Amino acid sequence: MMIGEILSTGDEICLGAVIDSNSAHIAVSLDEIGIQVTRHSCVGDDMDELAAVFSEIGSRADIAVITGGLGPTIDDLSAEAAAKAAGVDLQLDQNAEKSIEMYFAKFSRKMSGSDAKQAMLPVGAIPILNTAGTAPGFIFHIGRCRCYFLPGVPKEMENMLSESVVPDILSFQGVDKNIPLRKQLSVFGLPEALVNEKLKSFESLFPNVKLGMLARFPVITVKMTAIGTDRANLTDEIEKAVRWIAEKLGDKVFSLEGRSMEAEIASLLVKNKTTIAVAESCTGGLVSHLLTNVPGSSDYFLFSGVTYSNDAKKNVLGVSEETLQIYGAVSEETVMEMADGVRRISGATCGLATSGIAGPTGGTDGKPVGTVWIGISLPGKTLGYRFNSPFKERLSNKQIFAICALDLLRKKLKE
Amino acid sequence: MMIGEILSTGDEICLGAVIDSNSAHIAVSLDEIGIQVTRHSCVGDDMDELAAVFSEIGSRADIAVITGGLGPTIDDLSAEAAAKAAGVDLQLDQNAEKSIEMYFAKFSRKMSGSDAKQAMLPVGAIPILNTAGTAPGFIFHIGRCRCYFLPGVPKEMENMLSESVVPDILSFQGVDKNIPLRKQLSVFGLPEALVNEKLKSFESLFPNVKLGMLARFPVITVKMTAIGTDRANLTDEIEKAVRWIAEKLGDKVFSLEGRSMEAEIASLLVKNKTTIAVAESCTGGLVSHLLTNVPGSSDYFLFSGVTYSNDAKKNVLGVSEETLQIYGAVSEETVMEMADGVRRISGATCGLATSGIAGPTGGTDGKPVGTVWIGISLPGKTLGYRFNSPFKERLSNKQIFAICALDLLRKKLKE
Repeated sequence: MMIGEILSTGDEICLGAVIDSNSAHIAVSLDEIGIQVTRHSCVGDDMDELAAVFSEIGSRADIAVITGGLGPTIDDLSAEAAAKAAGVDLQLDQNAEKSIEMYFAKFSRKMSGSDAKQAMLPVGAIPILNTAGTAPGFIFHIGRCRCYFLPGVPKEMENMLSESVVPDILSFQGVDKNIPLRKQLSVFGLPEALVNEKLKSFESLFPNVKLGMLARFPVITVKMTAIGTDRANLTDEIEKAVRWIAEKLGDKVFSLEGRSMEAEIASLLVKNKTTIAVAESCTGGLVSHLLTNVPGSSDYFLFSGVTYSNDAKKNVLGVSEETLQIYGAVSEETVMEMADGVRRISGATCGLATSGIAGPTGGTDGKPVGTVWIGISLPGKTLGYRFNSPFKERLSNKQIFAICALDLLRKKLKE
Repeated sequence: MMIGEILSTGDEICLGAVIDSNSAHIAVSLDEIGIQVTRHSCVGDDMDELAAVFSEIGSRADIAVITGGLGPTIDDLSAEAAAKAAGVDLQLDQNAEKSIEMYFAKFSRKMSGSDAKQAMLPVGAIPILNTAGTAPGFIFHIGRCRCYFLPGVPKEMENMLSESVVPDILSFQGVDKNIPLRKQLSVFGLPEALVNEKLKSFESLFPNVKLGMLARFPVITVKMTAIGTDRANLTDEIEKAVRWIAEKLGDKVFSLEGRSMEAEIASLLVKNKTTIAVAESCTGGLVSHLLTNVPGSSDYFLFSGVTYSNDAKKNVLGVSEETLQIYGAVSEETVMEMADGVRRISGATCGLATSGIAGPTGGTDGKPVGTVWIGISLPGKTLGYRFNSPFKERLSNKQIFAICALDLLRKKLKE
């Protein structure tokens, strides 16, 4: 197995002004193609530190992905430090220069002297085209290590990683025609430890498929990668793995394509030609915010009433005074009237409502912090569901309540 | 100047399943007390890698903060690897054991055998109390370096860093009575580069105050730290610095206490005994979500109508058909009627409305993607503002539109 390291450079990361999210992205990509990632490092914009860490990596790793320090300013030292670590000079690379010129031509701009600096690469480096920005990357050997130098801007880095670096590593590994085949499932409603537990025999059942997991509260993405030369075989094996996981996790799997909950709901609403309106109490607008994050959501999302006060529940949604007095705002009766009310006033096919206690205060013995009622109003029927979150913290509860409401709606839309 | 390094440990970070946000937090804290942070590293749960990187850090740095690997499971190797790197044994630390017992006692639970493992520290280590979790940290010398071992759970780590590690470093630096005094300002409406430019003479004017900046789109936090022994002097100097920055950045500074925009609005609404209702189109619920993230917001937040469709704008808010036909949904006239309408139906003192084009599509020559109109309705007057964002991406525009609307409201509430 080849050993890989990741290095991010730049004062802004080393001094903590920016959180380094590039390294996690690169680690996942390398892990998926079978590189053993043993270390990440970060150093600031300092020539001696950079040259030192390049030499160390050159003596430890087979491949390395290095981000940052490729721009036009005086702080951008990566090419020079790499040349220093390998004991060679910098020279103007004409392909790199041409790619910078082409990028500027798109915006009818001319290259300045400091832009041209970005085409000065260590002797022996191979440029990597950057289609999303000015700074080209490059491949350069230091010690025993094939180093990939990429810009620090996440979008540019991610493009170049998947389009140039991953294919080059696969070919450098000597398995030229190998292709990685990937598949992702989205899961909600189980803690990560339990997902792990339920999938523990995966490795022995599917030895050629690599399993990974990425938790982005409250959703978990299960990732599978198969690497080989026979595409049909890989597809077959990965599909079997998907079916096995889908059976193990049941309806906790909400997307077989790794989509977000709101994107999944969007495609169901479009497919069913259904429109939606929302009445939110405890989620405070988050359900609507998620639904409207999907481009094109104005086609099916008609209205949301964030009815925090009882007056708004009565005046806007038509919830009855009696219901609020007898059962309280956090009750099955109230959320059902909220869901019916928002469907009626908006003319939507479907109404979704939330009312609960997000915390940190406001809980009682019968309705502790973390309690939420969710109402769904559909033509001819209205349903109420109770859910209890173990959290006491307001934002976590708003997030879990919102995804829970959308997940219940998803199940109803699939019936 | 003392040299500091930061090390995070754990397969979940090394393989990219979790983004390491601890290191940035630690870097900022160390930078503030004058430690020169030269390197971050990350290695997985591997005994040999851990011992190797501990030895390297021990030969390079004066102090190091190391997170993760202190828990009760078989993967938690930090104490053993530290002992190995320093050539000593592990032994049961009675203070550490007592602190774990005390933590469990809070929940009327008993310590198990694997919990007791967390009290096994390298010989010579000094335990660091963990008030928010079970795993105690410890201080331990490797080579020339004073290493602080902390848990990886962010809340536990952050507590222990500020309560135990920073004071210990200050005393280890030999300036026992030195105290760091901190102040933060929150800024909206200027790009980071321009804030830098406007504050470029800060360093020469306030040589004893360290300036830092943390960008969390679309808000920038400007951080100041002064270190010294004379509290009155420090307070005086830092107050002068705050006044200087407030003058340079003008009304782009929205909080002199480093608060979030929604917390700032909350305190103004409470102070003015004002209630609020919101009518959102392009922001899709985000303004309401932000306002209701503040605990206690039900005291002043009455209602929000997310009126995506023109029908909802007419039926719920009472926007006139003529206005929508003549001026369009994205117009000064429409947002003013939306703001008035939501104030009227909710009975709130103040109405806030947004209507714009978040993208990625839907723009025209006269109203390109990034255009937003914001309406504010107050007793006796209604105002409309146009704002243009340079972004084309939906979520970025929703974020900048929402903060922009709240910022305009803030300025009105302060008049």
